Amino acid sequence: MFNKVVIAGVGLIGGSLGLAMIRRNLAREVVGVDPAAENLALAERLGAVHRAGVLAEVLPGAELFILAAPIGVTLGVLEMAIPYLTSGTIVTDVGSVKGRLLERARKMVPEGVYLVGGHPMAGLEVAGVAGAREDLFEGASYVLTPDPHTHPLVLDKLKKLIQGIGANPVEMAAGDHDRAVAAISHLPHLLAATLVNTVTAEPNPDQLLKLAGGGFRDTTRIAASNASMWRDILLTNRDRVLETLRQFRGQLEEMEQAIENFDSQQLVYGLERARNVRAALPENRTYLKKR
Amino acid sequence: MFNKVVIAGVGLIGGSLGLAMIRRNLAREVVGVDPAAENLALAERLGAVHRAGVLAEVLPGAELFILAAPIGVTLGVLEMAIPYLTSGTIVTDVGSVKGRLLERARKMVPEGVYLVGGHPMAGLEVAGVAGAREDLFEGASYVLTPDPHTHPLVLDKLKKLIQGIGANPVEMAAGDHDRAVAAISHLPHLLAATLVNTVTAEPNPDQLLKLAGGGFRDTTRIAASNASMWRDILLTNRDRVLETLRQFRGQLEEMEQAIENFDSQQLVYGLERARNVRAALPENRTYLKKR
Repeated sequence: MFNKVVIAGVGLIGGSLGLAMIRRNLAREVVGVDPAAENLALAERLGAVHRAGVLAEVLPGAELFILAAPIGVTLGVLEMAIPYLTSGTIVTDVGSVKGRLLERARKMVPEGVYLVGGHPMAGLEVAGVAGAREDLFEGASYVLTPDPHTHPLVLDKLKKLIQGIGANPVEMAAGDHDRAVAAISHLPHLLAATLVNTVTAEPNPDQLLKLAGGGFRDTTRIAASNASMWRDILLTNRDRVLETLRQFRGQLEEMEQAIENFDSQQLVYGLERARNVRAALPENRTYLKKR
Repeated sequence: MFNKVVIAGVGLIGGSLGLAMIRRNLAREVVGVDPAAENLALAERLGAVHRAGVLAEVLPGAELFILAAPIGVTLGVLEMAIPYLTSGTIVTDVGSVKGRLLERARKMVPEGVYLVGGHPMAGLEVAGVAGAREDLFEGASYVLTPDPHTHPLVLDKLKKLIQGIGANPVEMAAGDHDRAVAAISHLPHLLAATLVNTVTAEPNPDQLLKLAGGGFRDTTRIAASNASMWRDILLTNRDRVLETLRQFRGQLEEMEQAIENFDSQQLVYGLERARNVRAALPENRTYLKKR
């Protein structure tokens, strides 16, 4: 159990972390910090934090400091926090990109403060603390990116917390994480948005959208996510995203060639390969079942 | 209310149509025809048809004949049915591609038999009558592709049936339908499969798949669909699919350029445009809510 936990940024992720930690008795005190006063008030009312505070007042003596602000402002929040961080505090973030962010953060944090990157692989297309839920992380992978200097006890504490909120801790090097999420998370977002834009560029988009069935809805659901957050993620992970896009284009060309050439065998091979992998992927997310 | 309805092919779609018609009292007698005896038996047990039969015996005097076999064998089934079709029978299909199929079908059906193409915009990634549900079409669009010779009374009967099963009839020219579904249905399938194949082509696919969150799951759900059915759909609608693929590639290049050039404004414009359209799309499918 953590003593005092400070969460900077009580949106969907920060709020859900707070909710889970409070309801599951994983922290004695959870304090929320957020530039939007109405966000903070709502977080308090929802029980996502015990109380609201400001960095200068709440950070000294905190056992855990979670940077849960949008990725574009994470380093700015850390910068503001630096003067008030005291020795022994564990600092972690929830950013979708780890390499560059952590490199810079590592240069900022003072001696005696433990920094370990984190990334819960959970989310919803809704934003804000209003959508926060205690079970958001249930069954999800939660990546930690320790480096050789990470203290084993610190890593252990974070892993216990992650298990406590129902998620599965996965240790990876920051660079491996960034390459992985480019393919498994950033590429899907890009494709979903591009698919919607392709349909709306057609001559009669309203009639087309009227025909949309469950397939189109599922495939494009994440295109409803916050645009500026995803711009920041895609640009922060630019090189990996461009690389995975190149891979995707190669695969798409193979499918296109098969259709172009009426190559039934090649086409069914590509579809079947995907089918086998996707059908074997468990639908084990609690929050999906509840919706 | 229809008198005798014959459904050829009691899979997910045919079975769900039968279930809906029987439970909602839209047909006095629903007879199932299927080459797979165990399919037919299951359909009977589930109440998706009143009884099983063979074309030669059940078609004469039928008021409605629904071709619900996979698209690759639809014309073959129609060919077998031709000798037993009697004057006044309405023939419709549920195929995902209409133009070429209907052109050929029209040349086959005898004088006095009414042919109207149909396509319910509903489906699930499961196949077979075991997945059939009465509410599969609830809130879905159901396309009809009448031509100038279609009898208004015939069209009216089909529209009433469609409304009876909870769907919304949409009239379109066959060619317009094929172009629309290429973008709204066939392209999403192709992208979902290609996305899965891109991930599995990465160096460590199992670890990547462990990180998959709700976004990847949603985006790729339809990749679990039947591969040979989708091969047939994609090849039958080849020219439209290739055209929509070209459009998609153009849109994807724009996004790629924006990322490549760190063009934050262009990127957020693309993401925001998609977000606005997708967020406005209602999640109104009953079967989605029930899962």
